[in-house]
Amino acid sequence: MVECVPNFSEGRNLETVDALVAAIASVPGSRILHRTSDPDHNRSVVTFAGESEAVLKSAILAADAAVRLIDLNRHRGVHPRLGALDVLPFVPLAGTSMDDCVALARHAGARIWEELHIPVYFYEAAALRPDRVRLEDVRRGQFEGLRQAAFFDESRAPDIGGPGLHPTAGAVIVGARKFLIAYNINLQTTDLEIAKTIARDIRESSGGLPAVKALGLPLQLRGLVQVSMNLTDFEQTPPHVVYAEVSRRAAAFGVEIEASELIGLMPRKAVEMAFAELMKLRQFGSARIIENVLESALPDSA
Amino acid sequence: MVECVPNFSEGRNLETVDALVAAIASVPGSRILHRTSDPDHNRSVVTFAGESEAVLKSAILAADAAVRLIDLNRHRGVHPRLGALDVLPFVPLAGTSMDDCVALARHAGARIWEELHIPVYFYEAAALRPDRVRLEDVRRGQFEGLRQAAFFDESRAPDIGGPGLHPTAGAVIVGARKFLIAYNINLQTTDLEIAKTIARDIRESSGGLPAVKALGLPLQLRGLVQVSMNLTDFEQTPPHVVYAEVSRRAAAFGVEIEASELIGLMPRKAVEMAFAELMKLRQFGSARIIENVLESALPDSA
Repeated sequence: MVECVPNFSEGRNLETVDALVAAIASVPGSRILHRTSDPDHNRSVVTFAGESEAVLKSAILAADAAVRLIDLNRHRGVHPRLGALDVLPFVPLAGTSMDDCVALARHAGARIWEELHIPVYFYEAAALRPDRVRLEDVRRGQFEGLRQAAFFDESRAPDIGGPGLHPTAGAVIVGARKFLIAYNINLQTTDLEIAKTIARDIRESSGGLPAVKALGLPLQLRGLVQVSMNLTDFEQTPPHVVYAEVSRRAAAFGVEIEASELIGLMPRKAVEMAFAELMKLRQFGSARIIENVLESALPDSA
Repeated sequence: MVECVPNFSEGRNLETVDALVAAIASVPGSRILHRTSDPDHNRSVVTFAGESEAVLKSAILAADAAVRLIDLNRHRGVHPRLGALDVLPFVPLAGTSMDDCVALARHAGARIWEELHIPVYFYEAAALRPDRVRLEDVRRGQFEGLRQAAFFDESRAPDIGGPGLHPTAGAVIVGARKFLIAYNINLQTTDLEIAKTIARDIRESSGGLPAVKALGLPLQLRGLVQVSMNLTDFEQTPPHVVYAEVSRRAAAFGVEIEASELIGLMPRKAVEMAFAELMKLRQFGSARIIENVLESALPDSA
């Protein structure tokens, strides 16, 4: 089993998103697990899973639908993006290794160029160069900036395809990575500097919380600002720790958290960790939840 | 499947508790799901489950072991109790109804008197009289007080057996009830009046939180006091609401929560409800947790 989490540069026109999701779901064996669209980000994240072969087919169909339906020249949104299908990560689930997902990513990347003529960059475990492991390094400059650089700057040229980007679909950033939690916290203010400051202070790359990536973004349609995050190792820094830290730093600006958002799915353990910590609950864990215990002790009871 | 949660009046001598647990586990098909012993309560709670027939056998063996191993005349503990095996509730799980559990309770009660000569009271859904639905009404006066009353006051006589109580094992209060969450909050003070006041204010019977029973108890061995609770309908009043309410009321006395404790097991949904609420997480629920989604979407992935 493999999970795949394509991020598309369309979060406003839900008919388009429906068509993208339908393309993925059209492959027998590929199951949509979740979908979410954000109008300020103008971006949609689809989570699906299945056997490798079905997931690969769906991924190619997703890229095909994206190049037909999305024109980046007309795309505006607060979330950074390089492609119509912007990011295409493969995530190992039960019975699959990271190596399997790297192979799958490479295979998908090759086909996206050969069949659809969209250039491809590889990131995380599928990266071909050390300076392309981090997604934010690959995506720096975004579609508009990289159109030139991909041509003229060898260090920014696609890993497969080119020269340059696709004129309307940009490039697809294909990767293999561990499960991550995409988690956003919205602040009750329109002052973007506050979100940017908090994001900078908490992100790992500037000495903040381990395994946290963070951006400060405006949510104009909602009259808020957002600390938009990827928690790349929730056992090191779980969501409730991030929430407490952002809450504390926002309070120092006199600002409250309006709400938080999970994009896609999260593992059960992150929920259980938060529960134990926030309620000062001793000796709590998976084995204290009746459904978990029944599933393992009495498999026929479920 | 039926769950059974015997409460024994022994929480200090763990060899005795081991023997009680071993008696339950000696029946093929009965599985121990959890056990917990508290030295201040001097009480142990065992959670086990299985098919009705196995659970009934284990329950009788539990009562038999308790009458042999526990003498209430020498028992001191802060938690109210009437019997060596104090409470014996049957709880319906998948495929079993409350009526099934009532029948099981009545059957168990009859055998406990016939085979072990311990009188029995029935409570909750298994109650034979409206004034015995509530456990606290049945147990009022405890072992010491009810030894006389069970003889001389017809309104306090056992439902089965007697006259009076068993000289060392008291009586067994057998019932059928819905799943409940046994949840305790320990306060960083030795002032018992604070725990008693909070318990009185939050319990449903004095106009507090719905579906909450609460007692204020001293935890002498730990130098704390405790608000000891049963949450009889966690969807009405979940643990995190109780935690917030006790925290607020304790803070008014200048007292902090030291820790909270779950006795036995709780349902997954209570954890997910707390997570959503405490992290102001919108549109969160079971369907956002990857294991849940995979189990239902792709049953062969687990």
